[in-house]
Amino acid sequence: MASEDVKLLGGWPSPYVMRPRIALNIKSVNYEFLEEKFGSKSDLLLKSNPVYKKIPVLIHGEKPICESLIIVEYVDEVWNSGHTILPSDPYDRAVARFWATYIDDKWFPGIRAISRADGEEAKKKAVEEVIAGLVLLEDAFIKCSKGKSFFGGDKIGYLDIALGCFLGWLRVTEKLGNFALLDESKTPNLFKWAEKFSSDDAVKDIMPQTDKLMEFAKVLMAKSKAS
Amino acid sequence: MASEDVKLLGGWPSPYVMRPRIALNIKSVNYEFLEEKFGSKSDLLLKSNPVYKKIPVLIHGEKPICESLIIVEYVDEVWNSGHTILPSDPYDRAVARFWATYIDDKWFPGIRAISRADGEEAKKKAVEEVIAGLVLLEDAFIKCSKGKSFFGGDKIGYLDIALGCFLGWLRVTEKLGNFALLDESKTPNLFKWAEKFSSDDAVKDIMPQTDKLMEFAKVLMAKSKAS
Repeated sequence: MASEDVKLLGGWPSPYVMRPRIALNIKSVNYEFLEEKFGSKSDLLLKSNPVYKKIPVLIHGEKPICESLIIVEYVDEVWNSGHTILPSDPYDRAVARFWATYIDDKWFPGIRAISRADGEEAKKKAVEEVIAGLVLLEDAFIKCSKGKSFFGGDKIGYLDIALGCFLGWLRVTEKLGNFALLDESKTPNLFKWAEKFSSDDAVKDIMPQTDKLMEFAKVLMAKSKAS
Repeated sequence: MASEDVKLLGGWPSPYVMRPRIALNIKSVNYEFLEEKFGSKSDLLLKSNPVYKKIPVLIHGEKPICESLIIVEYVDEVWNSGHTILPSDPYDRAVARFWATYIDDKWFPGIRAISRADGEEAKKKAVEEVIAGLVLLEDAFIKCSKGKSFFGGDKIGYLDIALGCFLGWLRVTEKLGNFALLDESKTPNLFKWAEKFSSDDAVKDIMPQTDKLMEFAKVLMAKSKAS
Protein backbone atom coordinates (compact mmCIF):
# COMPACT_ATOMS: atom_id res chain seq x y z
CA MET A 1 0.00 0.00 0.00
CA ALA A 2 1.25 3.48 -0.82
CA SER A 3 2.73 5.44 2.03
CA GLU A 4 0.22 7.69 3.76
CA ASP A 5 0.65 10.40 6.31
CA VAL A 6 0.25 8.14 9.32
CA LYS A 7 2.27 8.50 12.51
CA LEU A 8 2.00 6.55 15.72
CA LEU A 9 3.31 7.95 18.99
CA GLY A 10 4.25 5.02 21.16
CA GLY A 11 6.80 2.97 23.04
CA TRP A 12 7.77 -0.68 22.55
CA PRO A 13 6.92 -1.96 26.08
CA SER A 14 3.37 -0.55 26.11
CA PRO A 15 0.62 -3.13 25.58
CA TYR A 16 -1.74 -0.33 24.57
CA VAL A 17 0.62 0.77 21.80
CA MET A 18 0.70 -2.79 20.44
CA ARG A 19 -3.01 -2.57 19.68
CA PRO A 20 -2.91 0.08 16.92
CA ARG A 21 0.35 -1.42 15.60
CA ILE A 22 -1.33 -4.81 15.11
CA ALA A 23 -4.35 -3.13 13.50
CA LEU A 24 -2.12 -1.15 11.13
CA ASN A 25 -0.20 -4.33 10.27
CA ILE A 26 -3.44 -6.18 9.50
CA LYS A 27 -4.40 -3.37 7.14
CA SER A 28 -0.86 -3.15 5.66
CA VAL A 29 -0.71 0.56 6.41
CA ASN A 30 2.76 2.11 6.38
CA TYR A 31 3.29 4.40 9.33
CA GLU A 32 6.02 6.29 11.07
CA PHE A 33 6.57 4.98 14.59
CA LEU A 34 7.66 7.85 16.82
CA GLU A 35 8.94 6.41 20.09
CA GLU A 36 8.38 8.51 23.16
CA LYS A 37 11.34 8.47 25.53
CA PHE A 38 10.56 6.73 28.79
CA GLY A 39 9.93 9.27 31.55
CA SER A 40 9.38 12.28 29.29
CA LYS A 41 6.63 13.50 26.96
CA SER A 42 7.29 15.07 23.57
CA ASP A 43 5.69 18.34 22.53
CA LEU A 44 3.87 16.43 19.82
CA LEU A 45 2.36 14.09 22.41
CA LEU A 46 1.30 16.95 24.69
CA LYS A 47 -0.29 18.74 21.73
CA SER A 48 -1.94 15.62 20.34
CA ASN A 49 -3.39 14.22 23.56
CA PRO A 50 -3.75 17.21 25.90
CA VAL A 51 -6.35 15.49 28.09
CA TYR A 52 -4.42 12.34 29.05
CA LYS A 53 -0.91 13.08 27.69
CA LYS A 54 -0.56 9.34 27.09
CA ILE A 55 0.52 7.02 24.31
CA PRO A 56 -0.66 5.66 21.95
CA VAL A 57 -1.76 8.47 19.68
CA LEU A 58 -2.37 7.87 15.99
CA ILE A 59 -1.90 10.96 13.84
CA HIS A 60 -3.62 10.60 10.47
CA GLY A 61 -2.83 13.62 8.36
CA GLU A 62 -3.20 16.36 10.95
CA LYS A 63 -5.80 14.53 13.02
CA PRO A 64 -4.88 12.92 16.34
CA ILE A 65 -6.82 9.88 17.56
CA CYS A 66 -6.32 8.75 21.17
CA GLU A 67 -7.15 5.67 23.26
CA SER A 68 -5.92 2.32 21.99
CA LEU A 69 -9.23 0.56 21.30
CA ILE A 70 -10.73 3.67 19.74
CA ILE A 71 -7.72 3.80 17.40
CA VAL A 72 -8.24 0.12 16.49
CA GLU A 73 -11.88 0.84 15.55
CA TYR A 74 -10.77 3.92 13.58
CA VAL A 75 -8.15 1.92 11.65
CA ASP A 76 -10.74 -0.75 10.89
CA GLU A 77 -13.24 1.83 9.64
CA VAL A 78 -10.81 3.89 7.54
CA TRP A 79 -8.77 1.22 5.75
CA ASN A 80 -10.43 -1.61 3.89
CA SER A 81 -7.15 -3.24 2.94
CA GLY A 82 -6.68 -6.46 4.95
CA HIS A 83 -9.50 -8.24 6.74
CA THR A 84 -12.06 -6.52 8.95
CA ILE A 85 -11.10 -6.39 12.62
CA LEU A 86 -14.50 -5.90 14.29
CA PRO A 87 -17.02 -8.72 13.82
CA SER A 88 -19.56 -7.96 11.11
CA ASP A 89 -22.63 -8.94 13.15
CA PRO A 90 -23.87 -6.23 15.58
CA TYR A 91 -24.39 -8.71 18.42
CA ASP A 92 -20.94 -10.25 17.97
CA ARG A 93 -19.56 -6.71 17.90
CA ALA A 94 -21.30 -5.87 21.17
CA VAL A 95 -19.93 -9.05 22.76
CA ALA A 96 -16.38 -8.25 21.59
CA ARG A 97 -16.67 -4.70 22.95
CA PHE A 98 -18.01 -6.02 26.25
CA TRP A 99 -15.07 -8.37 26.81
CA ALA A 100 -12.54 -5.78 25.65
CA THR A 101 -13.94 -3.40 28.27
CA TYR A 102 -13.79 -6.18 30.87
CA ILE A 103 -10.13 -6.83 30.02
CA ASP A 104 -9.20 -3.16 30.44
CA ASP A 105 -11.36 -2.33 33.44
CA LYS A 106 -11.16 -5.52 35.48
CA TRP A 107 -8.75 -8.15 34.26
CA PHE A 108 -5.52 -6.30 33.47
CA PRO A 109 -5.70 -4.18 36.66
CA GLY A 110 -5.69 -7.59 38.40
CA ILE A 111 -2.27 -8.37 36.91
CA ARG A 112 -0.97 -5.07 38.23
CA ALA A 113 -2.46 -5.90 41.62
CA ILE A 114 -0.25 -9.02 41.83
CA SER A 115 2.96 -7.00 41.89
CA ARG A 116 1.48 -4.54 44.37
CA ALA A 117 0.05 -7.19 46.72
CA ASP A 118 1.32 -6.92 50.26
CA GLY A 119 2.18 -10.35 51.69
CA GLU A 120 1.86 -13.92 50.44
CA GLU A 121 -1.85 -14.25 51.22
CA ALA A 122 -2.75 -11.10 49.28
CA LYS A 123 -0.54 -12.18 46.37
CA LYS A 124 -2.18 -15.61 46.26
CA LYS A 125 -5.61 -14.00 46.18
CA ALA A 126 -4.57 -11.61 43.40
CA VAL A 127 -3.20 -14.54 41.34
CA GLU A 128 -6.45 -16.46 41.84
CA GLU A 129 -8.46 -13.47 40.62
CA VAL A 130 -6.42 -13.18 37.43
CA ILE A 131 -6.85 -16.90 36.76
CA ALA A 132 -10.61 -16.64 37.44
CA GLY A 133 -10.72 -13.83 34.86
CA LEU A 134 -8.91 -16.05 32.36
CA VAL A 135 -11.48 -18.80 32.96
CA LEU A 136 -14.22 -16.29 32.06
CA LEU A 137 -12.25 -15.32 28.96
CA GLU A 138 -11.74 -19.01 28.06
CA ASP A 139 -15.52 -19.35 28.04
CA ALA A 140 -15.83 -16.19 25.94
CA PHE A 141 -13.22 -17.62 23.55
CA ILE A 142 -15.19 -20.83 23.08
CA LYS A 143 -18.34 -18.83 22.27
CA CYS A 144 -16.69 -16.20 20.04
CA SER A 145 -14.24 -18.40 18.10
CA LYS A 146 -16.87 -21.03 17.18
CA GLY A 147 -14.22 -23.73 16.89
CA LYS A 148 -11.71 -21.57 15.02
CA SER A 149 -8.28 -20.30 16.07
CA PHE A 150 -9.08 -16.78 17.21
CA PHE A 151 -11.76 -14.83 19.04
CA GLY A 152 -12.31 -13.24 15.62
CA GLY A 153 -12.65 -16.61 13.85
CA ASP A 154 -10.07 -17.59 11.23
CA LYS A 155 -8.18 -14.32 11.64
CA ILE A 156 -7.15 -11.99 14.42
CA GLY A 157 -9.98 -9.66 15.42
CA TYR A 158 -10.76 -6.91 17.91
CA LEU A 159 -10.87 -9.09 21.01
CA ASP A 160 -7.70 -10.95 20.03
CA ILE A 161 -5.93 -7.60 19.88
CA ALA A 162 -7.50 -6.38 23.14
CA LEU A 163 -6.32 -9.42 25.12
CA GLY A 164 -3.25 -10.47 23.14
CA CYS A 165 -1.40 -7.21 23.69
CA PHE A 166 -1.10 -8.16 27.38
CA LEU A 167 0.60 -11.53 26.77
CA GLY A 168 4.10 -10.07 27.16
CA TRP A 169 3.31 -8.59 30.57
CA LEU A 170 1.45 -11.77 31.57
CA ARG A 171 4.59 -13.82 30.84
CA VAL A 172 6.80 -11.37 32.73
CA THR A 173 4.46 -11.56 35.73
CA GLU A 174 4.56 -15.37 35.61
CA LYS A 175 8.34 -15.43 35.40
CA LEU A 176 8.91 -12.88 38.15
CA GLY A 177 6.49 -14.62 40.50
CA ASN A 178 7.36 -18.18 39.50
CA PHE A 179 3.73 -19.21 39.01
CA ALA A 180 1.47 -19.95 36.05
CA LEU A 181 -1.40 -17.64 35.11
CA LEU A 182 -2.22 -18.93 31.64
CA ASP A 183 -2.34 -22.57 32.67
CA GLU A 184 -2.90 -25.25 30.00
CA SER A 185 -4.90 -27.40 32.42
CA LYS A 186 -7.30 -24.58 33.42
CA THR A 187 -7.62 -22.63 30.18
CA PRO A 188 -6.52 -25.00 27.38
CA ASN A 189 -8.10 -23.02 24.54
CA LEU A 190 -6.55 -19.72 25.60
CA PHE A 191 -3.21 -21.47 26.08
CA LYS A 192 -3.25 -22.62 22.45
CA TRP A 193 -4.63 -19.28 21.28
CA ALA A 194 -1.75 -17.39 22.94
CA GLU A 195 0.80 -19.36 20.88
CA LYS A 196 -1.07 -18.79 17.63
CA PHE A 197 -1.61 -15.12 18.35
CA SER A 198 2.03 -14.46 19.22
CA SER A 199 3.29 -16.10 16.02
CA ASP A 200 0.80 -14.39 13.70
CA ASP A 201 2.33 -12.28 10.92
CA ALA A 202 0.68 -9.09 12.18
CA VAL A 203 1.97 -9.66 15.71
CA LYS A 204 5.27 -11.57 15.85
CA ASP A 205 7.61 -8.64 15.10
CA ILE A 206 6.08 -6.35 17.68
CA MET A 207 5.41 -8.79 20.53
CA PRO A 208 8.13 -7.86 23.03
CA GLN A 209 10.58 -10.61 24.01
CA THR A 210 9.86 -11.72 27.56
CA ASP A 211 13.49 -11.29 28.71
CA LYS A 212 13.76 -7.78 27.31
CA LEU A 213 10.41 -6.83 28.84
CA MET A 214 11.51 -8.32 32.17
CA GLU A 215 14.61 -6.12 32.20
CA PHE A 216 12.35 -3.14 31.59
CA ALA A 217 9.99 -4.28 34.37
CA LYS A 218 12.92 -4.50 36.80
CA VAL A 219 13.95 -0.93 35.96
CA LEU A 220 10.35 0.19 36.54
CA MET A 221 10.17 -1.62 39.89
CA ALA A 222 13.51 -0.16 41.03
CA LYS A 223 12.31 3.35 40.14
CA SER A 224 9.02 2.83 41.94
CA LYS A 225 10.83 1.62 45.10
CA ALA A 226 13.27 4.54 44.97
CA SER A 227 10.50 7.14 44.72
CA MET B 1 -42.92 0.31 14.57
CA ALA B 2 -44.17 -3.20 15.26
CA SER B 3 -43.50 -4.56 18.70
CA GLU B 4 -40.34 -6.65 18.88
CA ASP B 5 -38.98 -8.88 21.56
CA VAL B 6 -36.97 -6.19 23.29
CA LYS B 7 -36.62 -5.90 27.05
CA LEU B 8 -34.58 -3.47 29.07
CA LEU B 9 -33.57 -4.23 32.64
CA GLY B 10 -33.15 -0.93 34.41
CA GLY B 11 -34.16 1.57 37.06
CA TRP B 12 -35.46 5.12 36.69
CA PRO B 13 -32.70 6.91 38.70
CA SER B 14 -29.78 5.35 36.81
CA PRO B 15 -28.06 7.65 34.30
CA TYR B 16 -26.64 4.58 32.57
CA VAL B 17 -30.13 3.16 32.03
CA MET B 18 -31.21 6.45 30.42
CA ARG B 19 -28.73 5.89 27.60
CA PRO B 20 -30.31 2.83 25.97
CA ARG B 21 -33.78 4.27 26.65
CA ILE B 22 -32.94 7.43 24.70
CA ALA B 23 -31.40 5.34 21.90
CA LEU B 24 -34.50 3.12 21.73
CA ASN B 25 -36.73 6.23 21.70
CA ILE B 26 -34.71 7.73 18.83
CA LYS B 27 -35.24 4.53 16.86
CA SER B 28 -38.93 4.26 17.90
CA VAL B 29 -38.38 0.74 19.19
CA ASN B 30 -41.07 -0.59 21.51
CA TYR B 31 -39.57 -2.31 24.52
CA GLU B 32 -40.60 -3.74 27.83
CA PHE B 33 -39.00 -1.83 30.70
CA LEU B 34 -38.33 -4.22 33.57
CA GLU B 35 -37.47 -2.21 36.65
CA GLU B 36 -35.05 -3.81 39.04
CA LYS B 37 -35.95 -3.23 42.66
CA PHE B 38 -33.46 -0.99 44.44
CA GLY B 39 -31.15 -3.07 46.64
CA SER B 40 -31.92 -6.44 45.05
CA LYS B 41 -31.09 -8.17 41.77
CA SER B 42 -33.57 -10.25 39.78
CA ASP B 43 -32.73 -13.74 38.56
CA LEU B 44 -33.03 -12.41 35.02
CA LEU B 45 -30.39 -9.75 35.74
CA LEU B 46 -28.02 -12.26 37.36
CA LYS B 47 -28.45 -14.59 34.40
CA SER B 48 -28.14 -11.84 31.78
CA ASN B 49 -25.13 -10.01 33.19
CA PRO B 50 -23.26 -12.60 35.29
CA VAL B 51 -19.97 -10.67 35.14
CA TYR B 52 -21.10 -7.31 36.53
CA LYS B 53 -24.67 -8.07 37.71
CA LYS B 54 -25.53 -4.48 36.83
CA ILE B 55 -28.18 -2.58 34.94
CA PRO B 56 -28.74 -1.70 32.16
CA VAL B 57 -29.07 -4.91 30.19
CA LEU B 58 -30.87 -4.97 26.85
CA ILE B 59 -32.35 -8.33 25.98
CA HIS B 60 -33.06 -8.63 22.27
CA GLY B 61 -34.79 -11.92 21.57
CA GLU B 62 -32.78 -14.19 23.82
CA LYS B 63 -29.55 -12.21 23.57
CA PRO B 64 -28.38 -10.01 26.44
CA ILE B 65 -26.27 -6.93 25.72
CA CYS B 66 -24.54 -5.20 28.65
CA GLU B 67 -22.80 -1.86 29.26
CA SER B 68 -24.73 1.30 28.46
CA LEU B 69 -22.62 2.73 25.64
CA ILE B 70 -22.19 -0.68 24.02
CA ILE B 71 -25.98 -1.01 24.05
CA VAL B 72 -26.33 2.42 22.41
CA GLU B 73 -23.96 1.35 19.61
CA TYR B 74 -25.87 -1.93 19.25
CA VAL B 75 -29.23 -0.15 19.00
CA ASP B 76 -27.78 2.20 16.40
CA GLU B 77 -26.41 -0.68 14.33
CA VAL B 78 -29.48 -2.92 14.52
CA TRP B 79 -32.34 -0.47 13.92
CA ASN B 80 -32.31 1.91 11.00
CA SER B 81 -35.59 3.55 11.97
CA GLY B 82 -34.92 7.07 13.27
CA HIS B 83 -31.70 8.97 12.65
CA THR B 84 -28.22 7.48 13.13
CA ILE B 85 -26.77 8.02 16.59
CA LEU B 86 -23.04 7.63 15.94
CA PRO B 87 -21.47 10.19 13.57
CA SER B 88 -21.04 8.84 10.03
CA ASP B 89 -17.42 9.98 9.62
CA PRO B 90 -14.81 7.65 11.22
CA TYR B 91 -12.82 10.52 12.71
CA ASP B 92 -15.93 12.16 14.18
CA ARG B 93 -16.87 8.74 15.55
CA ALA B 94 -13.44 8.36 17.19
CA VAL B 95 -13.77 11.84 18.72
CA ALA B 96 -17.25 11.04 20.08
CA ARG B 97 -15.99 7.76 21.56
CA PHE B 98 -13.01 9.55 23.11
CA TRP B 99 -15.15 12.11 24.94
CA ALA B 100 -17.71 9.51 25.97
CA THR B 101 -14.88 7.52 27.57
CA TYR B 102 -13.59 10.70 29.23
CA ILE B 103 -17.04 11.40 30.67
CA ASP B 104 -17.33 7.91 32.17
CA ASP B 105 -13.74 7.47 33.34
CA LYS B 106 -12.86 10.97 34.52
CA TRP B 107 -15.65 13.50 34.57
CA PHE B 108 -18.59 11.73 36.23
CA PRO B 109 -16.40 10.16 38.96
CA GLY B 110 -15.54 13.80 39.74
CA ILE B 111 -19.22 14.51 40.52
CA ARG B 112 -19.26 11.55 42.87
CA ALA B 113 -16.07 12.87 44.49
CA ILE B 114 -17.89 16.09 45.45
CA SER B 115 -20.29 14.28 47.77
CA ARG B 116 -17.47 12.20 49.22
CA ALA B 117 -15.06 15.12 49.74
CA ASP B 118 -13.92 15.52 53.32
CA GLY B 119 -13.93 19.15 54.39
CA GLU B 120 -14.64 22.45 52.63
CA GLU B 121 -11.23 22.71 50.93
CA ALA B 122 -11.51 19.22 49.41
CA LYS B 123 -15.09 19.93 48.29
CA LYS B 124 -14.04 23.20 46.66
CA LYS B 125 -11.26 21.40 44.77
CA ALA B 126 -13.65 18.65 43.65
CA VAL B 127 -16.14 21.27 42.38
CA GLU B 128 -13.37 23.06 40.48
CA GLU B 129 -12.34 19.82 38.81
CA VAL B 130 -15.87 19.10 37.61
CA ILE B 131 -16.15 22.62 36.21
CA ALA B 132 -12.73 22.27 34.52
CA GLY B 133 -14.04 19.07 32.91
CA LEU B 134 -17.12 20.93 31.69
CA VAL B 135 -14.87 23.59 30.15
CA LEU B 136 -13.10 20.82 28.21
CA LEU B 137 -16.49 19.46 27.15
CA GLU B 138 -17.63 22.98 26.13
CA ASP B 139 -14.67 23.09 23.78
CA ALA B 140 -15.51 19.61 22.49
CA PHE B 141 -19.11 20.77 21.97
CA ILE B 142 -18.00 23.74 19.86
CA LYS B 143 -15.88 21.45 17.67
CA CYS B 144 -18.40 18.59 17.38
CA SER B 145 -21.62 20.58 16.97
CA LYS B 146 -20.24 22.86 14.24
CA GLY B 147 -22.69 25.61 15.18
CA LYS B 148 -25.69 23.32 15.58
CA SER B 149 -27.72 22.44 18.67
CA PHE B 150 -26.20 19.12 19.67
CA PHE B 151 -22.84 17.35 19.80
CA GLY B 152 -24.37 15.19 17.06
CA GLY B 153 -25.37 18.21 14.92
CA ASP B 154 -29.07 18.87 14.29
CA LYS B 155 -30.11 15.83 16.28
CA ILE B 156 -29.13 14.05 19.47
CA GLY B 157 -26.13 11.77 18.91
CA TYR B 158 -23.87 9.43 20.82
CA LEU B 159 -22.03 12.08 22.82
CA ASP B 160 -25.24 13.94 23.66
CA ILE B 161 -26.55 10.71 25.17
CA ALA B 162 -23.27 9.97 26.96
CA LEU B 163 -23.18 13.34 28.73
CA GLY B 164 -26.86 14.23 28.85
CA CYS B 165 -27.83 11.22 30.94
CA PHE B 166 -25.89 12.78 33.84
CA LEU B 167 -27.80 16.09 33.83
CA GLY B 168 -30.26 14.91 36.48
CA TRP B 169 -27.50 13.99 38.91
CA LEU B 170 -25.60 17.17 38.04
CA ARG B 171 -28.64 19.26 39.01
CA VAL B 172 -29.12 17.28 42.24
CA THR B 173 -25.46 17.83 43.13
CA GLU B 174 -25.82 21.57 42.46
CA LYS B 175 -28.96 21.81 44.56
CA LEU B 176 -27.62 19.79 47.48
CA GLY B 177 -24.36 21.76 47.55
CA ASN B 178 -25.87 25.15 46.72
CA PHE B 179 -23.33 25.88 43.97
CA ALA B 180 -23.37 25.97 40.16
CA LEU B 181 -21.52 23.38 38.10
CA LEU B 182 -23.04 24.03 34.69
CA ASP B 183 -22.53 27.77 34.80
CA GLU B 184 -23.84 29.94 31.96
CA SER B 185 -20.89 32.33 32.27
CA LYS B 186 -18.24 29.60 32.05
CA THR B 187 -19.85 27.11 29.68
CA PRO B 188 -22.55 29.05 27.78
CA ASN B 189 -22.88 26.53 24.94
CA LEU B 190 -23.28 23.55 27.24
CA PHE B 191 -25.74 25.55 29.35
CA LYS B 192 -27.96 26.07 26.29
CA TRP B 193 -27.39 22.51 25.10
CA ALA B 194 -28.58 21.09 28.45
CA GLU B 195 -31.95 22.82 28.06
CA LYS B 196 -32.42 21.62 24.50
CA PHE B 197 -31.33 18.10 25.35
CA SER B 198 -33.67 17.81 28.33
CA SER B 199 -36.69 18.94 26.34
CA ASP B 200 -36.03 16.75 23.30
CA ASP B 201 -38.81 14.31 22.41
CA ALA B 202 -36.54 11.28 22.92
CA VAL B 203 -35.48 12.49 26.37
CA LYS B 204 -38.13 14.58 28.14
CA ASP B 205 -40.26 11.72 29.45
CA ILE B 206 -37.35 9.79 30.93
CA MET B 207 -35.23 12.63 32.34
CA PRO B 208 -35.85 12.29 36.09
CA GLN B 209 -37.34 15.29 37.87
CA THR B 210 -34.71 16.95 40.02
CA ASP B 211 -36.85 16.92 43.18
CA LYS B 212 -37.72 13.24 42.83
CA LEU B 213 -34.08 12.37 42.15
CA MET B 214 -33.03 14.45 45.15
CA GLU B 215 -35.34 12.48 47.42
CA PHE B 216 -33.75 9.31 46.07
CA ALA B 217 -30.25 10.75 46.62
CA LYS B 218 -31.12 11.54 50.24
CA VAL B 219 -32.25 7.95 50.81
CA LEU B 220 -28.97 6.74 49.27
CA MET B 221 -26.92 9.06 51.47
CA ALA B 222 -28.80 8.01 54.61
CA LYS B 223 -28.17 4.33 53.78
CA SER B 224 -24.50 4.97 53.09
CA LYS B 225 -24.11 6.79 56.46
CA ALA B 226 -25.95 4.02 58.31
CA SER B 227 -23.76 1.25 56.89
